[in-house]
Amino acid sequence: MDFSSFLTSLGTSFLLFFILMCLFTWLSRKPANHVIYYPNRILRGLDPYDGFRATRNPFTWIREALASTEADVIRCSGVDTAVHFVFLTTVLAILVLSGVIILPILLPISITARGIVKVNDTTSEGTFDDLDKLSMGRIEESSPRLWAYLLSTYWVSVVTYYLLWKAYNHVSDVRAEALMSPDVKCEQFAVVVRDIPPPTGGQTRKEQVDSYFKAIYPDTFYRSMIVTDNKKVIKIYEEFEGYKKKLARAEAIYAGSKKVGNPEGIRPTTKTGFLGLIGKKVDAIEHYDAKIKELIPKLEAEKKLTLKEKQQGAAIIFFNNRTTAAAASQSLHDTMVDTWTVLDAPEPRQIIWTNLPKHFYQRQIRQYVIYFIVFLTIFFYMIPIGFVAAFTTLENLKKLLPFLESILDQKMIRTVLGAYLPQLALLLFLALLPKFLLFLSKAEGIPSESHAQRAASGKYFYFSILNVFIGVTIGSTLFSTLKKVEKDPNMIFTLLAQSLPGSATFFLTFVALKFFVGYGLELSRIIPLIIFHIKKKYLCKTEADLKEAWTPGDLGYATRVPGDLLVFTVVLCYSVIAPLIIPFGVVYFGLGWLVLRNQVLKVYAPSYETYGKMWPHIYTRIVASLILYQITMLGYFGVKKFVYAPILIPLPIISLIFAFICDKKFYRFFQTTALEVACRGLKETPNMEVIFRSYVPLCLRSDSEKADEDQFEDALSHVSRSSSMA
Amino acid sequence: MDFSSFLTSLGTSFLLFFILMCLFTWLSRKPANHVIYYPNRILRGLDPYDGFRATRNPFTWIREALASTEADVIRCSGVDTAVHFVFLTTVLAILVLSGVIILPILLPISITARGIVKVNDTTSEGTFDDLDKLSMGRIEESSPRLWAYLLSTYWVSVVTYYLLWKAYNHVSDVRAEALMSPDVKCEQFAVVVRDIPPPTGGQTRKEQVDSYFKAIYPDTFYRSMIVTDNKKVIKIYEEFEGYKKKLARAEAIYAGSKKVGNPEGIRPTTKTGFLGLIGKKVDAIEHYDAKIKELIPKLEAEKKLTLKEKQQGAAIIFFNNRTTAAAASQSLHDTMVDTWTVLDAPEPRQIIWTNLPKHFYQRQIRQYVIYFIVFLTIFFYMIPIGFVAAFTTLENLKKLLPFLESILDQKMIRTVLGAYLPQLALLLFLALLPKFLLFLSKAEGIPSESHAQRAASGKYFYFSILNVFIGVTIGSTLFSTLKKVEKDPNMIFTLLAQSLPGSATFFLTFVALKFFVGYGLELSRIIPLIIFHIKKKYLCKTEADLKEAWTPGDLGYATRVPGDLLVFTVVLCYSVIAPLIIPFGVVYFGLGWLVLRNQVLKVYAPSYETYGKMWPHIYTRIVASLILYQITMLGYFGVKKFVYAPILIPLPIISLIFAFICDKKFYRFFQTTALEVACRGLKETPNMEVIFRSYVPLCLRSDSEKADEDQFEDALSHVSRSSSMA
Repeated sequence: MDFSSFLTSLGTSFLLFFILMCLFTWLSRKPANHVIYYPNRILRGLDPYDGFRATRNPFTWIREALASTEADVIRCSGVDTAVHFVFLTTVLAILVLSGVIILPILLPISITARGIVKVNDTTSEGTFDDLDKLSMGRIEESSPRLWAYLLSTYWVSVVTYYLLWKAYNHVSDVRAEALMSPDVKCEQFAVVVRDIPPPTGGQTRKEQVDSYFKAIYPDTFYRSMIVTDNKKVIKIYEEFEGYKKKLARAEAIYAGSKKVGNPEGIRPTTKTGFLGLIGKKVDAIEHYDAKIKELIPKLEAEKKLTLKEKQQGAAIIFFNNRTTAAAASQSLHDTMVDTWTVLDAPEPRQIIWTNLPKHFYQRQIRQYVIYFIVFLTIFFYMIPIGFVAAFTTLENLKKLLPFLESILDQKMIRTVLGAYLPQLALLLFLALLPKFLLFLSKAEGIPSESHAQRAASGKYFYFSILNVFIGVTIGSTLFSTLKKVEKDPNMIFTLLAQSLPGSATFFLTFVALKFFVGYGLELSRIIPLIIFHIKKKYLCKTEADLKEAWTPGDLGYATRVPGDLLVFTVVLCYSVIAPLIIPFGVVYFGLGWLVLRNQVLKVYAPSYETYGKMWPHIYTRIVASLILYQITMLGYFGVKKFVYAPILIPLPIISLIFAFICDKKFYRFFQTTALEVACRGLKETPNMEVIFRSYVPLCLRSDSEKADEDQFEDALSHVSRSSSMA
Repeated sequence: MDFSSFLTSLGTSFLLFFILMCLFTWLSRKPANHVIYYPNRILRGLDPYDGFRATRNPFTWIREALASTEADVIRCSGVDTAVHFVFLTTVLAILVLSGVIILPILLPISITARGIVKVNDTTSEGTFDDLDKLSMGRIEESSPRLWAYLLSTYWVSVVTYYLLWKAYNHVSDVRAEALMSPDVKCEQFAVVVRDIPPPTGGQTRKEQVDSYFKAIYPDTFYRSMIVTDNKKVIKIYEEFEGYKKKLARAEAIYAGSKKVGNPEGIRPTTKTGFLGLIGKKVDAIEHYDAKIKELIPKLEAEKKLTLKEKQQGAAIIFFNNRTTAAAASQSLHDTMVDTWTVLDAPEPRQIIWTNLPKHFYQRQIRQYVIYFIVFLTIFFYMIPIGFVAAFTTLENLKKLLPFLESILDQKMIRTVLGAYLPQLALLLFLALLPKFLLFLSKAEGIPSESHAQRAASGKYFYFSILNVFIGVTIGSTLFSTLKKVEKDPNMIFTLLAQSLPGSATFFLTFVALKFFVGYGLELSRIIPLIIFHIKKKYLCKTEADLKEAWTPGDLGYATRVPGDLLVFTVVLCYSVIAPLIIPFGVVYFGLGWLVLRNQVLKVYAPSYETYGKMWPHIYTRIVASLILYQITMLGYFGVKKFVYAPILIPLPIISLIFAFICDKKFYRFFQTTALEVACRGLKETPNMEVIFRSYVPLCLRSDSEKADEDQFEDALSHVSRSSSMA
C-alpha cells in the first residue's frame, strides 16, 4: 500500500461516515423513527428532542453531545455509563497529552534521520515510504537520536500514571456520590446469604434463617426471603405468559379485521399441534382462553409447592437501614468461612437466581475449571476451527446434505465456498465467542448479571490481545509461535518487538476502519432501524409487541470495553515506534466519545447499575497494557542495540508498584460499600414492604398483596416483631 | 560414635533428667520456694497445692498433669496456652500414629536387606553399624523393598492431613467458645482506628472522630479515646515511679535498722549525683520525698499538655455491644482504604501505643524493608560474625584493652580464647537473635505485642530450618551452598536428600539432648530459683521488690514455637529414612507435653490473650514442613534410583490444595470475630466506664475518677448523648 492508496482508503471511510451521519440526521427527524433514535427519552417519558430544536444541520447531535454534563449522563443512563465515559476521557487525554509532546519532537527527528531502512524493519513492508519516514524504524542502530524515543517512552508512562490516578479518584467520588444518594435503592437494604447449612432440630429453613439473623441484628433485621428452586414454576409461568401474549395478538388481529365493510371481522384460527402448524384447526381466541384458564390453577399450585418444598440453601436478608446492610455484607458471620457466606445484594433485575444456591466449593472448582477452559480457548481455538473446516469440505457437505449437490457442482460456487469455508468457520466462531464467554462466566456461579459481564469482558480482552494484537503482529496464530517460545519464555517480547514495525500499517487502517465505519453504523442505527420496520410490518400485532421491537439494549460492556481496550493497547504500543498512530487513536476515542454520548443520552437504556464496579476492571487492564508497552519498548530498544535501553527497566517495576498502591487504596470500596457512605440520611423513611416485594421473582408474584402475604409465609419470613415495633 | 557410646550418652542424659526431677520434688516442697514453683496459683490467690497433697513421690507432678483437662488449662493460663497444647497433642499423635504402622514394617525390611552400605550413604558416617541396619540407607538401589518406604511416605502424609484438619476444627471451636463467653472482656467492645486524616474546618481531632463515628453508629457508639504522643509524659512518669520505689526501699531499710539495741535506727543516705554514687551526701528519705513533690506538678502539667496538644492520627473507639465492635472491625469505613483503617482492638496490656499512629504507607514500606533485613540476616548472618571474630583477635584485644595484657600473655588462656572467640561471637549472636527479631517485628508497625511475637516466631522458624536443619545437613552454612545451588535451584532438594542420611545420628542426639536436659532444667527451674534467692538476699528490700523477683514470665511463644517446630520438621523428614527417630520424637513431644502442663498449671502466667491467633501460624509452618519432607523424600527416592519415585509427585500438590482449603475455610475467623459468636448474650450489662478506663495508659491515669473526667475532656470524648439516653 503506498501513501496515496492509504489516503484513498482513509478518504473513502470518511466519506462513508459522513454519508451515514447525514442519513442519521435525515432519518432521526421522521416521527416514525423516533422510537429507534430516542428510545431512552421515550422510555423515561420525555419529549424526544428534550428542549433541542429538530434541525437539518447534520452536526446538531455533536453540539448536544458536547453540551451534556456528567450529571446528565448519570441521570439518563446511570453511573456505569458515566464511568465508561471517564474511561474514554482518560484514554483520550493520555493520547492527546502524549501526542502534543511526542509528535513535534519525534517526527522531525525521524524525518531528518539518515538511517537506511532495512526491509524487515519498515513499518509497511517497504512499500510505504512516506510512513516509514515518520517512524522509529528509520533511526540507525545505537544512534544518540534514540534518546528522544526513550524519553518519550517515559513521558507516555508518566502521563498514563497521572491521568489514571486522577481518574480512579474521580470514579471513586462518583461512586460515593451515587451511593450516598438520599433516594431509596432496594439493593442497599439487602444482603445475599449463601451456603446456609441444612437446618437442624426440626426447624424449617425459614425459621433457621430468621432466628440466626434476629440474634445478630435484633433491631435492624426486617425479614428474609429464602431462594427457591423455580425451574418448574418458571416453565409454567412462561407457558402462561406465552398464551396471554398469543391471546392479545389474536384479539388484535380480530379487532383489526373489523373494518367498515366487515363489521363482524374474521376470528383468527390456530392449530393445536406443534408451533400452531399441525393438528386440529380451532378458534384461536377461545383456544388460548381455555389454555390460560387451565394454567392458572396449575401455576398457583406450583407456586405454593415451590415456596413450601423447594427452599434452597440461599436467602436474601432485608435490613431496615443501609449502614447495617453494608456492614453485614463485609462481616464474617459464621466461624467457618464456607457457611453463611454473606455478600452485597445485587439489584433484583440482575440476580442470577440459579447461581445463588451453588455451594462454596462447587463455585471454587467451577471457577478453576472454567479458567482452564478459557485458557484452552484462547490458546488453542484454531484447533477446533481447523477441525470444523476440515470436516466441512465440499465432499463431506455433499455426502451429508445430498440435496445441495446440484448447487455445489457449479464451478464458481465450488471455488468460492472452497476458499471461504474455513474463514466462515472462523467468523462464526468469533461472532459466537462473546456469548460463549458470557455463558462460561455465568457457569462459574457468579450471583449477578453485571459481575458475569465483567468476567466475560476480562476473558474477551485477553483473547483479543493475545490473538488479534500479538497474533497479527507476530504473523501467525499464537499457537505456532508458542512452540518457538517454549524454550525461552522471555523471547516472546523480543519477537514481538522485532515484528511490531512490520504491522504498523495494518493497525493504522484497522483503527481507522473501526472508527469511521463502526461509529457510522453505530450512530445511524441502520440495522436496528431496518429490523424494526420489518418487524413492525410483518410481526407486531399489539402495542406490547411493538415496544418489544424497539426497546434498545444496553451498552454491551462485555464486548465494548475489551474492544476499546484493544485499540488503546495497539495505539499505546505503537505510540513511540510509529507516532503517527496517535492522531488516529485520538480520533477513535474522540469520535467514540461523541457518538456514544449521543447514543447514551438518546438511545441505550442500561439493564443494570453497579455504581462503577467496572472501573477497577478497566483500570487493571489499562495498567496491563502499559506494562506490555513498556516491556515491548525495552525489547525494541534492544533490537536497536541502544546501550542505554536498561534505563527503561524501572518502568515496568514502577507500573507494578503503581498498580499495587492504587489497588490497596481504592479497590476495596469498589467491592463493598464504605460505612461512611452508607450512613448518609434518606429523603424519606423507606417502605420496607416495597423493597421486599421488588426482590420477589416475577414468576412467584401474585396480583393482590393480600394473597402474597398468605402465600409467602413459607419461604418468605414475616416482618420481625422487634422491627415492626421500633 | 558406636552403639554403646550412643547408649551411654543417652543414659547419662536420662540420669541427669531423673536427678533434676528428684531435685524438683525436693525443692518444690519447701515453702520458701513456693513462689518459684507455684507462682501462677499464688497470683490467682490459690493454695499452692490446689487440692493435691504434697508428697515425696517424684512422679506426683505427672499424675497431676495427666489429670488436668483442657478447661483447666484455659482457666489457669488462657486459650493461647490451650492451643499450644493442641499443637503438642497433634504433633505427638502424628508421630505415634505414623510410628505404630511404620516401625513394625520398615525396621524388619531394612534389617533383612542385604545392601552394602556405602560410606557416604550411612546414617552415622560408617561408625555406627547398628543404627545403619535400621535405616533406609541399607536398601539397595531400585530394590522392590523401596515400595514399603514409598507407601510409608504416603501414610505419614495422610495421618498429618487428618490430624491437622481435626486440630484446626477443634481450635476453631475453642476460640469460638472463648469469644462467646458471657464474661465482659474489654477488647470485645473496642476497635482501633488508624490513619485518621487531619481534621478540617477548625474541628479538634476529638470532635472529628466523635462526629464521624456518631454518624455511622448513632445508637451503639459509646465514646472515643485519641492516641497521644506519650513519650515525654512516660519519661517523667518513670522518673516519678522510680523515686517512689527508692523511697519505699529507703523507708524499709530505715525500719529494718530499728532493732532492740538501736530504737532510733540509722537513716539511710544517698548521693545526689549520677546513680547515687557521686555528689553531696544527703538523707535518702528526705531527698526522695523532695524529688517526688517536685515531680507531681510537673507530671500533672505534662499530662494536661499531652492530652490537649499531642493528639495523634489514631484512636480507640468504644461501642456498647460486642456485635457492633466485631462488625466495625471488619468493615470499610472510608472510601479510601488508607484512611480511617479499622481493626480489632488488642487487649489494653498488649497494645504497642507508639505503633498506632504510624501511617498506612509507612507501615507497608517498613514491612518490606524489614523482610529484606530478615532475609539478609537468615542467609548472610555468618558475614558479620566472621567480621567480629576477625576483629576480636587477641592482638586487637590487647591493643584496645591494654590492662588485659598480663592475662592474655598466659599461654593457656591464649590458646583457649584463640580457639573459642569465633564460637563465642556465634553463641552471643544466637542468644540475641530472638530479641533482635522481636525488635524488627515491632519496628514493622504492628499494633499489638502478641502479633509482634507471632511475626518474630515466624522469622525465627525460617532461620532455624534454613540454618540448623538444612545447614547442618548439607554440612556447611547455607551461604556457601547457595553458590552451588545458584545454577539450578532444584538442586537444593537433591543435595539435601543426598546429605540427609549422613546427619541422622547428629539429629538423634540433638533431639535426645534437647528433651532430657532441656526439660529437666525447665521442670526443676534451677536457674530462676538461684536468681530469686540471690535477689532476695541482696537486693530486695520491699514486698514489691520481692514480687518482682519471683513473677514468672509467660511461655515465650516467640522461641518456644519455632523450637518445637524445628524438632517436628527434623523428625518428620527422617521419619521414613531413619524411622528410629520417631520414638525419640514421641518422647520429646510426650515429655514436653507433661512438663509444660505442669509449668502451665503452676508456674507461667500469660502476658496476653489472643484466643488462639497463634494457631494458623503454627498450622502453616507444619504444612510447610510437610511439603519440605515430601520433596526431600522425592529427591531421596531419586537418589535411590527408584523408578516409581514419581508416584510421590502428587503429594506436595495435595498438601498445597489441603493448605488452600483449610485457609479458605478456617482462617478468616482467626483474623476477626464472627458475628454469630459476638452476638451471644452477656452475664451482666457491661460497665462501659470500666472498659473505657482499662484502656487509659498508666502514665495518663489519675488517682481520682473525678479528676480523670475533667482532664480527659481533651483527648477522650465524653459519653455520647444518644447512647447515654438509650
